[in-house]
Formats: sequence, structure tokens, C-alpha cells
Amino acid sequence: MKAAIIGIGLIGGSFALSLKEHGLCQFVVGVDNNPQNAQKALELGLVDQIVSQEEAIAEADLIVLATPVNDIPTLAIKILNRIGLKQTVIDVGSIKGELSEMISQHPKRGRFVATHPMWGTEYSGPDAAVHGAFTGRTVVICDRESSDEDALTLVEKVYTAFGMPIIYMTSEEQDLHSAYVSHISHITSFALALTVLEKEREEEHIFDLAGGGFESTVRLAKSSPETWVPILMQNKYNILDVLREHIHQLQIFRIMLEKDDKEGLTSAMRKANTIKRIIK
Amino acid sequence: MKAAIIGIGLIGGSFALSLKEHGLCQFVVGVDNNPQNAQKALELGLVDQIVSQEEAIAEADLIVLATPVNDIPTLAIKILNRIGLKQTVIDVGSIKGELSEMISQHPKRGRFVATHPMWGTEYSGPDAAVHGAFTGRTVVICDRESSDEDALTLVEKVYTAFGMPIIYMTSEEQDLHSAYVSHISHITSFALALTVLEKEREEEHIFDLAGGGFESTVRLAKSSPETWVPILMQNKYNILDVLREHIHQLQIFRIMLEKDDKEGLTSAMRKANTIKRIIK
Repeated sequence: MKAAIIGIGLIGGSFALSLKEHGLCQFVVGVDNNPQNAQKALELGLVDQIVSQEEAIAEADLIVLATPVNDIPTLAIKILNRIGLKQTVIDVGSIKGELSEMISQHPKRGRFVATHPMWGTEYSGPDAAVHGAFTGRTVVICDRESSDEDALTLVEKVYTAFGMPIIYMTSEEQDLHSAYVSHISHITSFALALTVLEKEREEEHIFDLAGGGFESTVRLAKSSPETWVPILMQNKYNILDVLREHIHQLQIFRIMLEKDDKEGLTSAMRKANTIKRIIK
Repeated sequence: MKAAIIGIGLIGGSFALSLKEHGLCQFVVGVDNNPQNAQKALELGLVDQIVSQEEAIAEADLIVLATPVNDIPTLAIKILNRIGLKQTVIDVGSIKGELSEMISQHPKRGRFVATHPMWGTEYSGPDAAVHGAFTGRTVVICDRESSDEDALTLVEKVYTAFGMPIIYMTSEEQDLHSAYVSHISHITSFALALTVLEKEREEEHIFDLAGGGFESTVRLAKSSPETWVPILMQNKYNILDVLREHIHQLQIFRIMLEKDDKEGLTSAMRKANTIKRIIK
């Protein structure tokens, strides 16, 4: 199989590495708008050759869209316009609503498989790509009934080879769930970083104490706006729902603390502790 | 040196292990109100013998208070009442305000050194104690001018042997800083866990997608109310300050998202990114 990656950053670059590690491709070509990124991806051995979008479309059996999510819907349409009926296109973005609507009536819709491999880090660009990134993580395949059977089978084969359990959902479900288990975590980290940075103006040495708990909750605040602003915008309504609920939960903590309500705090924490059944 | 640990849980148990690992003590005795915990600590080899508080006070050169923070001030007074002038008492709690006030006029105040080793995990009890816990983490010593020189020297020797950089602060500074770089992270994790658990009632499979970002921001929600309610209560005013600021930052994100303010979101995230200079 020949594969082309469009957008060779954290996700695209790691995807390229995985394709080779798991013996799915000997040769992976890459496309990137940014010539420095493209050059870097080549130097790092993420891809074997940098090509134009046209060359990628002409050659590849599998075309992987790994750009920021705001570019994916338009790119998907343009690529579907040009591919043949034996080629398969996937995206690996974390939002599907807009994409799914945009391609829904395309005559070659069946060649597209919308996927969200649930892996990422707070870093970005080709330097951030790592070996063995996806293994053991879940991948969501959206609206599978809209994809041709052979395209779906190919994509399932790829993710299974990566060692990823597959879950099937509609685009709507995936966007809602991602708001709760991924997107909100980023907002809370950004807000927490800003809260402490704000205080640092008055208290110079505040970060001397920053330990493990702080690092883990604030780590995602290093994530790039280029990746995250488009995700927030495209998943706006789901994220606003979860953000309002989260602020509400924080207000409850604030009120309990103001009222010295130890029983309330204990019971809220004990309920939160049940998250143990989810994360080991 | 003979040491006694009062409260042999996550912190006390790990402290006992560190004393032996770093060659500071051959023999460590333990005191615990809870007979099951005491027995477990003995079985796990955290301490060499379980003794009564009186026996611990009679024998130990160094007495370490590692109970939940609400018990520390009273315990500190009672132990200072009974020790001799060559013994040293320390606490390892994360809050100092109440403690510092309670012991301030005690005739043996000089025998006490208030310390906060900046390490912890979301687990509790003797089972949670680990080897090599404190190495590389910072320890705060509070109000050092209130401690006798020999007591301070002994405690500095212990923490230096553990491989911990020492920072000196007043109790007030330490409580303020801890609110920002430790306590608030716990509240945001608890609230985030509750936010998602709430949604799970409607959306059964929401956690199927929970990945790395979610795990790291919500990990602290597994922390025990027995440890954390007393910390929140004792550091109430500092924590309310930071909690209000954090809610305010989240409200700003909410408003920017509602207004499609991409520039505002980008600029807030870029500012939050500067946290990179603190956490690598």
C-alpha cells in the first residue's frame, strides 16, 4: 500500500511512523504547506518524500488528512473531487460535525472514512511526532454506514494493526463525547495556567513550589492555539455546554467552602472518587 | 538517630522509607490511630515497630507528624508539652497557618520545624507509600527563625540527604503559594470528574473515549476527602481567592467562545503557553 500524509505534524507524523512500524507501508509520502515543516519531517524520517498535493493524490492508495481541523472539510471536498474509486481518504481530526455535513452529498462520499484516533500530546509540529504513538488507544470511526465497505475494511485493518480498539459512533456523538473527555481538559488547563501566571505578578516565587499535581493538571496548557482554537470553534456548542456545567461544579465547591460545609465537600469528593472506575 | 512517624500513610510511610534508604536511621517506629493501618505499615516494612505515642516520645530523636492536617496543630502542642530539649519535632503537612499560630507561644517552640515536602500522589494509606518518593522535589521550611539552630540543622540534613532542594518561607507565604500550585489543581480535578460523571447519566459510553489528556487533568480527583477536606478548610481564604480567579478565567473563555472571538482565544492560549518556562 502507498500512503500520503497531508499535514506532517504531531498526529500526521506519528501516523506515518506507525504505518511503517506496523509493516503497512514501505513508502510514505508527505505534503505540507509549510516548507520548513516539510523539510524537518523528511530529515526526521517521518516520510520518505515530500510531494505536491497533486502528486500525492495521483499515487496514494490511502490519503490521510492530518491538518488543523478548520482546514479538513475544504480539503476533504477538494481531494474527493480528484481521487479515483479505489483510493481511500481518511481524516484524523478530533471534530466531525462540519466535515460530515460538508462531504455528506459528495458523489464520492463512500471513499471517505472519518476517524479520530484518541491520542495526542501537548506538543505540535513534526518534532513532536513519536514512535508507537497510537498503540493501546481507542479510535473512533464515525458514520461508518456512509463509507464504502472496502474503504472501511482498509481503515479497520490499519487501526487494528496499530493495536487500537475501534469504537463506532455518529459524528454528533463523537463531538459531544470529545467535548467532555478531551476538549474541556484543555480549557481547564489553559485557565489554570492563566490563573497562576496572573498571581505570579504579585508573588514572584510562586512557581518554586510547583510539583507533580500542578504539572499534570496544567500540562495541556502548553498546547498550541493553532490546533485548539479551530477545535473549540468547530465544537462550540458542545464545549459551551460542558464548560457551563464545569463552572457550575466549581461554583458549588466555592459555596461549600465559603459555608464551611465539610459534609458537602466530603460527599462531592467521594462522588468524584468514583472516577477510579474509569481511570486506573 | 531514632525516628518516630506519627500517621503512617502515603506521606508518613514514604518518609519512613526515605529515612532508611538514605542511611539516616536503622530503626523507625510508627504510631497510628488506626490499628489496621498500623499493622499494614508493619507488614509492608515501612516501620520496624508499632508503638504508643508515649513510647515514641520517650525514644525518638526526631518525631514526624504526618497525620491529616486538621490533627496536626493539637498533636504538635501535646508533643511539645512532653518532649525534652534535645528532641526535634517536624510536621509534613501542606498547611501551616493554624499550626504556626497554635505553637507560636509554646515554651518549646524552638524544638519544632514546620516543613512541607512538595510531593504526593492521589493515593492514600500505607499501601500508597513508595520508595524514593521525595528525591528531586522541593521542600519548604517555614518560619525558620522560630526553630532552634540544632533542630533546624538536623532537619536540613535530613532533607538534603533525601535530595530535596530547600526553600524558606513564612507560613503565610507557603499557604498562599500552595493554594495556587497545589490545592487549586485538586479542586479543578474533582470538579472535572463530577462534570463528566454528571453527563454520563445521559451518555452511557462517554468514557470509552477518555484518553491521556483527560487522565492527567482528572487524576487528582481520586484523592481522598479525609486528606483534602481539612486542607481546604484550613487554607480556606487563599483557596477561595484562587478559586474565584480560576472561575473568572473560565468565564472569559466561555464568553470568548460564545462570541466567536478567535483572536481573544488565540491570545489567551498563547499567554497560557508561557507556562512552558515553568514546567518542562
